[in-house]
Amino acid sequence: MVGRMLSSPEPTLSTMAMSAAHGEDSPYFAGWRAYDEDPYDPITNPQGVIQMGLAENQVSFDLLEEYMREHPEASDCGAGVRENALFQDYHGLKSFRKAMASFMETIRGGKARFDPDRVVLTAGATAANELLTFILADPGDALLVPTPYYPGFDRDLRWRTGVNIVPVSCDSAAGFQVTAGALRAAYDEAVAAGTRVRGVLITNPSNPLGTTAARGVLEGILDFVARHDMHLISDEIYSGSVFAAPDLVSVAELVDERRRARGGAADAEDIARRVHVVYSLSKDLGLPGFRVGVVYSYNDAVVAAARRMSSFTLVSSQTQRTLAAMLSDAAFAAAYVRSNRDRLRERHARAVAGLRRAGVACLRGANAGLFVWVDMRRLLGDGEATVAGELRLWRRVVAEAKLNISPGSSCHCREPGWFRVCFANMSLETLDVALHRLGCFIKKWEQEQHEN
Amino acid sequence: MVGRMLSSPEPTLSTMAMSAAHGEDSPYFAGWRAYDEDPYDPITNPQGVIQMGLAENQVSFDLLEEYMREHPEASDCGAGVRENALFQDYHGLKSFRKAMASFMETIRGGKARFDPDRVVLTAGATAANELLTFILADPGDALLVPTPYYPGFDRDLRWRTGVNIVPVSCDSAAGFQVTAGALRAAYDEAVAAGTRVRGVLITNPSNPLGTTAARGVLEGILDFVARHDMHLISDEIYSGSVFAAPDLVSVAELVDERRRARGGAADAEDIARRVHVVYSLSKDLGLPGFRVGVVYSYNDAVVAAARRMSSFTLVSSQTQRTLAAMLSDAAFAAAYVRSNRDRLRERHARAVAGLRRAGVACLRGANAGLFVWVDMRRLLGDGEATVAGELRLWRRVVAEAKLNISPGSSCHCREPGWFRVCFANMSLETLDVALHRLGCFIKKWEQEQHEN
Repeated sequence: MVGRMLSSPEPTLSTMAMSAAHGEDSPYFAGWRAYDEDPYDPITNPQGVIQMGLAENQVSFDLLEEYMREHPEASDCGAGVRENALFQDYHGLKSFRKAMASFMETIRGGKARFDPDRVVLTAGATAANELLTFILADPGDALLVPTPYYPGFDRDLRWRTGVNIVPVSCDSAAGFQVTAGALRAAYDEAVAAGTRVRGVLITNPSNPLGTTAARGVLEGILDFVARHDMHLISDEIYSGSVFAAPDLVSVAELVDERRRARGGAADAEDIARRVHVVYSLSKDLGLPGFRVGVVYSYNDAVVAAARRMSSFTLVSSQTQRTLAAMLSDAAFAAAYVRSNRDRLRERHARAVAGLRRAGVACLRGANAGLFVWVDMRRLLGDGEATVAGELRLWRRVVAEAKLNISPGSSCHCREPGWFRVCFANMSLETLDVALHRLGCFIKKWEQEQHEN
Repeated sequence: MVGRMLSSPEPTLSTMAMSAAHGEDSPYFAGWRAYDEDPYDPITNPQGVIQMGLAENQVSFDLLEEYMREHPEASDCGAGVRENALFQDYHGLKSFRKAMASFMETIRGGKARFDPDRVVLTAGATAANELLTFILADPGDALLVPTPYYPGFDRDLRWRTGVNIVPVSCDSAAGFQVTAGALRAAYDEAVAAGTRVRGVLITNPSNPLGTTAARGVLEGILDFVARHDMHLISDEIYSGSVFAAPDLVSVAELVDERRRARGGAADAEDIARRVHVVYSLSKDLGLPGFRVGVVYSYNDAVVAAARRMSSFTLVSSQTQRTLAAMLSDAAFAAAYVRSNRDRLRERHARAVAGLRRAGVACLRGANAGLFVWVDMRRLLGDGEATVAGELRLWRRVVAEAKLNISPGSSCHCREPGWFRVCFANMSLETLDVALHRLGCFIKKWEQEQHEN
C-alpha cells in the first residue's frame, strides 16, 4: 500500500463511501474475520476457529465434479471463445435463461412455470436484491423486512440505494412467522413517521430461520401489498434446499394459482405485477464463486428496467455456457436436487442431535437451508436477556470454543439469545468437532453461571 | 409476456426505473437495434445492416483459441469446482489479481507498476466506472467529461448514482485534445451554477477519438484536480490497443514518475491519492462476455470502499481461474499484445484508406482503439451543419448504405458531422463490403446535394 510522507488532508470522498451503511461492522462480519485470522484445519491448525457463520453448501460438490468429469465439453472454453465473447448476448444467453427457468421449475416440483424471457441475470443475489430495490423504491423510501433477517440486507438494500429497512417484528411464540398484525403495525408506524413504504421483502425459505413460509402467511402478504400499492420481493435462494416436510410454497405457485382460479381476472394480474422473485445458484448448487443471480418479475416494466440495469452486474458468458449445459440436462438436475436434499436432511439431523446433546434446542419446524436457528436463551443469566448479554456469550463462544456462529442481534432478532449455526460448509468430521466443542463450552459456561 | 385483461393502473415504480437517464434512447443504441433487426451475413443476408457501432475486437480470437487448445487445464472446470466455489475468495483470486496487475504492466511496456492488492475486480468497466462515481461523488454532484465521449457514460455515471456529467468542450482545431481553458471554463460554469464538481473522467486512449492524451495534457489535468480537491478517473480500457506512435502515456506512469522525482514528497502523494484507473479485458483481449473490469486506485480508502462495493458486481471465479492461467503466462501475454497491435494497425490502415477512397477523412494522429473518428462535415450541406443535419445523414447511412455507424452527437460532440466507425468487430471481407457501400452512398449523396 502507499507509504505516506505526512498527514496532508485526505481527498474528499462521497458520503456513501464514508458511511457505515455497508453494515460490515456487525458481529456477523467480525466473526468472519475471526475465522480468517485463525482458520481451523484438522491437520495443520486443529485449535483454529471453525467457520459456522458461512451459509455455504459443500455437501454436494462431488456431484458437480462428477458431472464435469463426464462432460468435459461443458467447460471447454477453447471451442466457445468466439460465441462466449459475443457482446450482443449481454442480456444473458438464451440457452442459459431457459436452463435457469427449467431448474427453478424442477426445484418447485413443477408447481410453478417460469418464462425464460422474464429471467434477468445478475452477478449473484446480492446484486439482484439491490437492483430490485433501485427499481421499486426512491431514496428515503422503505421496504418492510421481517426479523430476524440476513445481515447482508443492511448493505444490499440500503447502502447505495438510500432506501431504508423497516423491520417487521416476528417472535418465537409464533415460530417467527410473519403475522398480519406485525406487518400492519410496522407499516402504520412507518407511514405515521412520514415514510413511503414501497414493498415487503421476505426470504422463503427463511435465512436465518431455516423454515418455509406458510401458505396462509404468503396469501396475506400478497393481499397486503396489493392493498397498499406495494411490491413483494420473495428471495428464494434456498428454494432447492428444502429437505423435509412441509414442502416449499413459492410465491410463484400462488401467482399461477390465482391466475388459473380467477381466469386471469384483473386482481390476479394486478397482484402478479407486484411480485418479484430472486434466485441464485450460490446456495442450492453450492457455487457462490460463479456469481449467478436471477431477478424474475411478472411485471414487464420491471423486467425491462432490470435488464437495462443488469449491465452493471452481468454474468460471465463462460460460466453461463458451462451451467447451461449442466442444468439443461434434466436428468442430472433432478438427480442433483434429490441427492442434495437427502444429504442436507442428514446433515441437519446430525446438527440438531449434536446441539441437543450440547444442551440447546433448535427452532421447531425447520425444514430448509444450510443452518439451524438455535435457542440459547436459557444460557443468558438473570438480567442478561439483552443484546449485550447475547454478545458477551457470542464473544466467548468465538474466543473459547473457537466457533464462529452468528448472534441473532446481527440478524436484528428482537429476542436475545438466538444464534444462527451453519452446518453445510464443512466436512462431517469438522461438524462433529464443532458440536463437541460447543458441548464442552456450554458445560463450562453453566458451571460458571452456577458458581456466580 | 403477461397477457393483460384490462388496463388497471400499473404498480408504482421508482423514479429511477421510469426515468430516461439510462440513456438508451440515443441514436447510438437505436443503431444497435437497426442491426439486431436485420443483421448482415455474407451468405444468408448480404443486404443486411453491417454493425460498425460496436467497439469489439474480433481480430485476435484465434490467438486465444490456440492458447485454450494448447492449455485445456486453464478451462478445466471439473478439477477447479471446489476451489472455484470458495466464497471467501469473493474479493478476487489472488492469482488473478496478480496476473491482471502484471498484464497492465506489460501493456504499458513496464513504465508503470501495479500492486495486486490495489486491484479491485468488477463485472466489466461499466460497473467499475459507476462504482468510482458512487465513491467519489454525492447525488447532485458532477464529473467533468471531455467531449466527444462514449455514449454509455450517460448511463454508467449518472443513472443510479444521481451524479451529473458536465461536458468539457473539445474541438477539432485542437485535435479534440482537452485544453486547460476548456477544463477551467466548464468547471467555473458548473461552480457558478452551484454544482459541486468532484472529478474529471477521461478515456485514454479516447473513445471515440482513437487517440491518446498528450503528456502535457495529462500533467495539466493532474494539477487541476489537485488544486480543486477533485479526483481523476482515467478509463484506460483501450490501453492495450495502441497500435502506432505516439505510445500511450498512462496516468499511472505519471504518478510513478512524480513519486520518484520528488522522492515521495507530499504533493506527489496527494496527487496519487486522487488518481483512479479503470481497466477491462473486454477490448484489448476481446472478451466482453467474460465481464472482467478493474478499479485500480492509489487511495487506500477508495480501494477499501471499492472492494466492499464490488460485492454487487463480482467476477465469476471460473473465469478468473481461466484468465489467471492465461495472463500469468508472460510469454503468451507479451506475444498476444504484440500480435494484436500489429493486426489492429493493419485493420486501421485498411479502414482509413477505404474511407479516403469513399471521400472522407479520419481524425489525424489516431493511434489506438477499435474505431476511427470520421470527418463527414463536408457532406452536410449549407445550413445543415447542425445536429439535425447530422442525424438526417446518419439515418440515411443506416437505411440506405445499411451501415450502423455512430453519429457524433450521440457522443455529445459539439461539431456536427463527425462519426465513429468501428473496424475490428467484423471480418476483413465484411469491412471491405462496408467501405464499398459507404463509397457508393457518398457518391449518391453528393449527386443529390449537387442537384438540389
